[in-house]
Amino acid sequence: MMRQAGRYLPEYRAIREKADFLTLCKTPELAAEVTLQPVRLVGVDAAILFADILLPLEAMGAELVFAKGDGPTFPHPVRTRQDIDRLRVPDVEESLGYVFNALRLVRRELDGQVPVIGFGGTPWTLAAYLVEGSGSKDYGHLLAWSYEDPAGLAVLLDRIADTSIAYLKGQIAAGAQALQLFDTWGGLLSLERWRALALPPLRKIADAIRGTVPLIYYVNGGGHLLEGMRDLPVDVLSVDWRVPLSKVRQVVGDRVLQGNFDPAALLGPIPEIERLVARVLEEGKGGGHIMNLGHGILPRTPVDHARAFVNAVKRSGG
Amino acid sequence: MMRQAGRYLPEYRAIREKADFLTLCKTPELAAEVTLQPVRLVGVDAAILFADILLPLEAMGAELVFAKGDGPTFPHPVRTRQDIDRLRVPDVEESLGYVFNALRLVRRELDGQVPVIGFGGTPWTLAAYLVEGSGSKDYGHLLAWSYEDPAGLAVLLDRIADTSIAYLKGQIAAGAQALQLFDTWGGLLSLERWRALALPPLRKIADAIRGTVPLIYYVNGGGHLLEGMRDLPVDVLSVDWRVPLSKVRQVVGDRVLQGNFDPAALLGPIPEIERLVARVLEEGKGGGHIMNLGHGILPRTPVDHARAFVNAVKRSGG
Repeated sequence: MMRQAGRYLPEYRAIREKADFLTLCKTPELAAEVTLQPVRLVGVDAAILFADILLPLEAMGAELVFAKGDGPTFPHPVRTRQDIDRLRVPDVEESLGYVFNALRLVRRELDGQVPVIGFGGTPWTLAAYLVEGSGSKDYGHLLAWSYEDPAGLAVLLDRIADTSIAYLKGQIAAGAQALQLFDTWGGLLSLERWRALALPPLRKIADAIRGTVPLIYYVNGGGHLLEGMRDLPVDVLSVDWRVPLSKVRQVVGDRVLQGNFDPAALLGPIPEIERLVARVLEEGKGGGHIMNLGHGILPRTPVDHARAFVNAVKRSGG
Repeated sequence: MMRQAGRYLPEYRAIREKADFLTLCKTPELAAEVTLQPVRLVGVDAAILFADILLPLEAMGAELVFAKGDGPTFPHPVRTRQDIDRLRVPDVEESLGYVFNALRLVRRELDGQVPVIGFGGTPWTLAAYLVEGSGSKDYGHLLAWSYEDPAGLAVLLDRIADTSIAYLKGQIAAGAQALQLFDTWGGLLSLERWRALALPPLRKIADAIRGTVPLIYYVNGGGHLLEGMRDLPVDVLSVDWRVPLSKVRQVVGDRVLQGNFDPAALLGPIPEIERLVARVLEEGKGGGHIMNLGHGILPRTPVDHARAFVNAVKRSGG
């Protein structure tokens, strides 16, 4: 389940009461513990590394602040070519070693029961946060840059891609058995602009990872990008809940799909969850399909509803 | 241009220095003045009523607060059937008369030079704000309600629809020569759920307005909803910048379209703006097309770029 470790679990909240978010991310024992929680408590059939998508940007030299109640912010957003000069492709063992150590702990604890999936953001999505400095309603700074100086923005995206490659390879070395790339903001772009701006750094990563572990690409609100996704050199295409899988398949053919159960449906009654699981599995036929949520699990999700979802999928043999 | 009155205009900012946002909305002379600014300063060929989309909710009895720096909030969000009981279908002349007065002033000032377009939000989008209490990353409360008690949510949506009908008819009586309905959050839903949840109250409004003035429906991030839009009883379908108009037309046929110039492109160089105007006009061929931005104009847009956009469209004869 996407973002399967998190606030909906009382056991997660108990740990968060003792440690702030960044401390949790940077303490391998704690990060490993919350990574394992959904496996033990909900019964999912893979562990997903608990880490924040923005950590590699901090490792590149961008100050990252998690203020209470607010989301993450970069007090010094990157908006010009000169700003890019402040960012380096870091030594990931030195700056992100805590992530790799958490992964090693998870692998040891799991002892082969279920696989571990590592993850990262796509360069376009990481740049979105770094350029705005925080979440944004319109991503005006990012989009402005993309029209004012697309070549300059491409330099930033390429540097993030190089960092991501080192970071993801480090995750593989530490035991990640598959990798997910999250493109939360790829859907802001038209297909043509996605191909021009977001795809080159994404393809660079995909090419670098190919031949190691399976790579999953997830995009949010990307129903209009399916033609571009069809040609992506990744193993699995992961989609949100907006477009039924049968329609996705009309465009991407027999590619392996992941998704696309609406996470909000986990807030509804359990019989309805079970009905929708059967429905999504039916829609997914015609090629490989890994059942998953279409976006992160909502913090208000009752744990027994998450369990009902997992059980319904398992019972179906999916 | 969508949201054509606003912060990118120094003359708007000058008025905002003297009056907070709600005062501006509720003072007909000021609202009329900022409604007229884009006509005089940028040369657009229609005035668009300046008002906040959320005002009818306040008129229904929901306390609405615009805190400085933050967006609008409802301190008492509506999340249950009991909460709905707090909301009435208001006497719009009494509670929203200031909007109608602003429209009358605008009509008088314009004296037929250009038409005036009124507007409102769709019930789904208005409910999104009212249920969350503010902007939201995931609209979890709204979506939860839609799964937990869709019939209860339908009651709320229907009451908002009834209010909207009175509000929009009041705008027509005060001189609005066309109406736009904004569905900022319709794109959160899959087509099937949009049809089940968002469409019934929307259709109720469309049916009530039909035969009076042209009605425009705009949805943001709704590329996956085009099949549903095709069958909507409205005069114009307005889309964002994500899907090219030629593709939109493949689904909706010869419907009159509006859009879909990327508002962020106005931040790029003027020759590029002119190139993109020609491009979008070309894509729009094959049926009626009203050139417009695909979303609200960004506050950082240089005024001469907005003017260049309008001039390029006018030169093309579009």
